[in-house]
Amino acid sequence: MSGTRRVALLVAYHGSAFHGYQRQPGFTSVQAELEDAWMAITGEPVVAHGSGRTDSGVHAWGQVAHVTTASTIPAEKLSHALNTYLPDEAVVRAAADVEPNFHSCHSALAKRYLYRIALGSTRPVINRGQVAWVRGELDLGAMQAGARYFLGEHDFSAFAAAGRSTSTSVRTLNSIHIWPQRGGLSLIVEGDGFLYKMVRNLVGSLIEVGRGRRHPDWLASVMESRDRQLAGATASPDGLYLWRVRYQNDPFLCC
Amino acid sequence: MSGTRRVALLVAYHGSAFHGYQRQPGFTSVQAELEDAWMAITGEPVVAHGSGRTDSGVHAWGQVAHVTTASTIPAEKLSHALNTYLPDEAVVRAAADVEPNFHSCHSALAKRYLYRIALGSTRPVINRGQVAWVRGELDLGAMQAGARYFLGEHDFSAFAAAGRSTSTSVRTLNSIHIWPQRGGLSLIVEGDGFLYKMVRNLVGSLIEVGRGRRHPDWLASVMESRDRQLAGATASPDGLYLWRVRYQNDPFLCC
Repeated sequence: MSGTRRVALLVAYHGSAFHGYQRQPGFTSVQAELEDAWMAITGEPVVAHGSGRTDSGVHAWGQVAHVTTASTIPAEKLSHALNTYLPDEAVVRAAADVEPNFHSCHSALAKRYLYRIALGSTRPVINRGQVAWVRGELDLGAMQAGARYFLGEHDFSAFAAAGRSTSTSVRTLNSIHIWPQRGGLSLIVEGDGFLYKMVRNLVGSLIEVGRGRRHPDWLASVMESRDRQLAGATASPDGLYLWRVRYQNDPFLCC
Repeated sequence: MSGTRRVALLVAYHGSAFHGYQRQPGFTSVQAELEDAWMAITGEPVVAHGSGRTDSGVHAWGQVAHVTTASTIPAEKLSHALNTYLPDEAVVRAAADVEPNFHSCHSALAKRYLYRIALGSTRPVINRGQVAWVRGELDLGAMQAGARYFLGEHDFSAFAAAGRSTSTSVRTLNSIHIWPQRGGLSLIVEGDGFLYKMVRNLVGSLIEVGRGRRHPDWLASVMESRDRQLAGATASPDGLYLWRVRYQNDPFLCC
């Protein structure tokens, strides 16, 4: 029997171990692991609503889920208790009591994703599965110039994979930064929401520009076309991290 | 039939996938994978002598191995060819022709190891297996103060695990640096050689100091005692990387 107390969970996971966040019959999911762990410590069946599903193989540093519960376990003890039952590849970083109308998905103001690319002639082995690999080099300046076309409100149909229906493909990107990292590049993008595989499609097209195969202006014409066929290939899930979800009354401001 | 050409290989690997560098019957090793890959591309059986064995679970960014070969494949093509046959967790970063008397182990002037520690209340999940985890915080200043006692020439018996005979347990450490990293600490230590599990034992004792359980001066008295029983626990292999091997005529100065 679920109560009226609502608790938000800040969750990190290694995407390679799960078929995405969302529970699916016959597949390992972060949601199922969270719900099983909750059941183990409270005996109570709950639904751990996530802020979004994240695809198979995609990582999270700051996924947010919420549960409605009758449990009286203090929030500060919940993380440790849940982590005792979660598999090694998932961890609750923090738990917080939230207003009963808080919803991890509907209350989200913005989401931030990180994408990590390793460059060079040899494949990454130490952080294999945690970065995408682009053999050779990428032109950072060209990618930064091209990324500016994504900022603001646009119809991102050209960068949305088929397979999920949404009422509109208009989204607003607040910021996008690309910077050099030891052995590669990182990209952070924040927006009010993202279409199915949109970040990986934006990155895939930016890589085309970085390789010098396309001019930065090409990205503007692809976006205008709304034609998925014109954009670059979908980049690997290995490099993608759901980094942070922002809320009006953010339960995890300090994390 | 082995020729007189000698080639050095710069090798990186994720230690979790192997029972150490050195070939052992019935276990997966980096050496066996390198020798098998060499056989696959040249048809020639070789021995890939490593600069040292590295224990099970220990990673390498800059392991060096050498082979004596009759192959005429140019060095600059060897890496790519070998990487085609190596498993995902190991990669040849570079290959170089060296003098016939070059020996990956005997010619080594110094070795440098990196040790990475993640701190905090939640276990690492994204880089699980690539960092050691210390729950809570460590006093960086105390660890830096204690680490100074390790510098120079000492009998490191107190920090050597039993199980491997060496003629002497005197070694010289040239440098040791500990610095804060996002979410943890890193340590780099360079010396003319290391006893069995010595780096992990030094780190384990430094962690005792960092936790405040021991005064930095305690490390000096442990070293003087030459008694393994007095030192801290052996730190996890997860955090340890063979980072670099230095040679007089260094074949990989640019890597």
